[in-house]
Amino acid sequence: MIKTDILIIGAGPTGLFTVFEAGLLKLKCHLIDALAQPGGQLAEIYPKKPIYDIPGFPEVGAGELVDNLLEQGKQFQPGFTLGERAETIEKQEDGSFIVTTTKGTKHQAPVVAIAGGLGSFEPRKPVIPNIHEFEDKGVAYMIKDPEVYRDKKVVIAGGGDSALDWSIYLADIAKEVTLVHRRNEFRGALDSVEKVRELKMLGKINLITPAEVVGLGGVDELKEVVIEKNEEQISVEADAFIPLFGLSPKLGPISNWGLEIEKNAIVVDNSLDYQTNIPGVFAIGDVNTYPGKLKLILCGFHEATMMCQSAYKIINPGKRYVMKYTTVSGIDGFDGSRKEAEKAVVQAIE
Amino acid sequence: MIKTDILIIGAGPTGLFTVFEAGLLKLKCHLIDALAQPGGQLAEIYPKKPIYDIPGFPEVGAGELVDNLLEQGKQFQPGFTLGERAETIEKQEDGSFIVTTTKGTKHQAPVVAIAGGLGSFEPRKPVIPNIHEFEDKGVAYMIKDPEVYRDKKVVIAGGGDSALDWSIYLADIAKEVTLVHRRNEFRGALDSVEKVRELKMLGKINLITPAEVVGLGGVDELKEVVIEKNEEQISVEADAFIPLFGLSPKLGPISNWGLEIEKNAIVVDNSLDYQTNIPGVFAIGDVNTYPGKLKLILCGFHEATMMCQSAYKIINPGKRYVMKYTTVSGIDGFDGSRKEAEKAVVQAIE
Ligand SMILES: Cc1cc2nc3c(=O)[nH]c(=O)nc-3n(C[C@H](O)[C@H](O)[C@H](O)COP(=O)(O)OP(=O)(O)OC[C@H]3O[C@@H](n4cnc5c(N)ncnc54)[C@H](O)[C@@H]3O)c2cc1C
Ligand SMILES: Cc1cc2nc3c(=O)[nH]c(=O)nc-3n(C[C@H](O)[C@H](O)[C@H](O)COP(=O)(O)OP(=O)(O)OC[C@H]3O[C@@H](n4cnc5c(N)ncnc54)[C@H](O)[C@@H]3O)c2cc1C
Repeated sequence: MIKTDILIIGAGPTGLFTVFEAGLLKLKCHLIDALAQPGGQLAEIYPKKPIYDIPGFPEVGAGELVDNLLEQGKQFQPGFTLGERAETIEKQEDGSFIVTTTKGTKHQAPVVAIAGGLGSFEPRKPVIPNIHEFEDKGVAYMIKDPEVYRDKKVVIAGGGDSALDWSIYLADIAKEVTLVHRRNEFRGALDSVEKVRELKMLGKINLITPAEVVGLGGVDELKEVVIEKNEEQISVEADAFIPLFGLSPKLGPISNWGLEIEKNAIVVDNSLDYQTNIPGVFAIGDVNTYPGKLKLILCGFHEATMMCQSAYKIINPGKRYVMKYTTVSGIDGFDGSRKEAEKAVVQAIE
Repeated sequence: MIKTDILIIGAGPTGLFTVFEAGLLKLKCHLIDALAQPGGQLAEIYPKKPIYDIPGFPEVGAGELVDNLLEQGKQFQPGFTLGERAETIEKQEDGSFIVTTTKGTKHQAPVVAIAGGLGSFEPRKPVIPNIHEFEDKGVAYMIKDPEVYRDKKVVIAGGGDSALDWSIYLADIAKEVTLVHRRNEFRGALDSVEKVRELKMLGKINLITPAEVVGLGGVDELKEVVIEKNEEQISVEADAFIPLFGLSPKLGPISNWGLEIEKNAIVVDNSLDYQTNIPGVFAIGDVNTYPGKLKLILCGFHEATMMCQSAYKIINPGKRYVMKYTTVSGIDGFDGSRKEAEKAVVQAIE
């Protein structure tokens, strides 16, 4: 059982900034995300694109913003359960909650902050009759740890940035990379397309287009991928098949948690602290709704900050908290680090 | 008469970010501030200190954040009335407002956003009997344009960062700089104290401590400053006397505008758009209050963003606005500039 002060469901920008604001109040956080990496929509949908409306950044790359948020929260040592979807929530007699993931990992906390964005990112799966039999036995829809593919024969399917970028990355690690796409045209960043072209020339990526994966073979473990090109079938020996057809967000299990839902989002009290109809459960960022709601990153930051104040009161009943500016008080990390502004000197000038 | 869409009172971080959010909605802004420079508390109280709780910045200097916000809003060409305090507001028959400053400058807009922070920054004045006679005739409490002092004889009084930094700056411009402080000890950034020490050695700053300015002389214009040291009086020829004893914020005239005030702040509807009891007048940032209010920079950013949505509806009645992400739509500046994410390419790989 993983225990923490605030259990955050969703490691998008809102969830990540919650770690920092909670840390200022000496509260610990643990994050659960269905994705293999933190960053939410920014990491999954547009990691290389610039954002122009983050206050103080005339322009910032989405991936860079995620890195900055991770860096900002690091000193408060958040825990992560990645690549698992939060499935159920149960209220305990002591008022705390237990949240269990698809893989059975259990988490307990007095406060739950749902920062689930548009929902947990679920892969779009290709229609191959027996694909389910090979899931986690060679078939994966996202890459958690690329090292798993070292010296393996890998078949990747897809025509977007993820397919391009992982093909490039694995070309260095895997024994063999085959990239299959149903068109000749790829859609992605110019430099990714050019890099794949180059690796194809060098024989480091085996490109098969226009083609589709139509069958999988093997006993217990994946051994073979069947590819159809020009109405002919080619069999490729493979240890892994990774269809990267994009992930799409689904509110999913959270919609059965007894929360008030409106327009596919969780209704919260925006006049105070973004609490849901279940006391102790908050919803912040894209996942919530209230009059005038804007699904913007900067709004999630504010909501996270307000929410942490109420979390503090739930976790420290009766204790009074006096807010101090970070500039004035400095920051004490849970790792023993200390950051503070340089003090003014008081010195005579003779 | 200066006309604009949103008239912003206060050019602190909240006011500055409003320019950007308004610009995204194609609304123009004009800012009024009692200070000579934008930045509010950050510029006046702690320009050189780091802030740790701006989302996405593990650390950012207060002055640097102000520069970034100015840069972010620049393309939307805000107007500025600086060094003047907004004094009165009058509602017009057409629903718009006219705001007049201490110096009589008039501004008209259909929406007024009060981003006045803790109030307009007013100088702490030294007690010298006839000082008021020389205001704007040699005596100034803040420096709007240092060029005014080129080749002039300047006396500065004070022992903090402003007094140190302006003495350093003017040492290069003015004919003569005299720095008077009632103690030998100065309180400021180490490098400022050291720089003043060095300039004193070089004879570029005439340092008189522990001493006090006790009298001013001249006909129509300042000509002489009388300094008392060790119970003796010294007369110094001077064109300018600049006491820099700090500025302290006062809500001031705004408290007589018919707005609902609580705890020295303006009550707003935080469940929607931070509007005050006067329709068309909003209050955002440190200047407002509502249940759970936190006087933090990041909260001002959110409040500004929400407010702009309602401003849009007031200014464009009946028109429907569909929010677009900056990443997706790019940004069109009022100066003809265009910023946008690099487009994905669609290319065949042969
Ligand atoms: C193309 C595009 C461009 C954009 N441009 C901008 C822009 O310029 N400016 C701007 O402000 N916003 C922009 N946005 C919106 C912005 O990305 C979102 O507002 C932001 O990502 C919301 O952050 P979040 O942390 O609330 O949610 P998300 O980023 O959606 O993160 C939520 C996370 O929660 C996880 N999750 C959900 N449910 C579960 C569960 N049950 N178990 C485990 N994990 C779960 C998801 O997997 C996801 O990783 C853009 C969005 C897109 C798609
Ligand atoms: C030492 C110190 C450290 C801080 N550290 C942090 C921190 O680490 N993190 C954080 O989030 N916050 C911090 N703060 C608070 C932060 O500075 C404020 O939240 C922020 O400045 C509020 O911004 P604002 O734009 O709402 O108002 P302000 O910055 O106060 O700006 C308001 C402006 O309005 C002007 N004004 C007001 N009335 C009038 C009028 N009638 N006419 C003309 N002009 C007028 C004023 O002159 C002023 O320039 C700190 C504050 C201090 C003093």
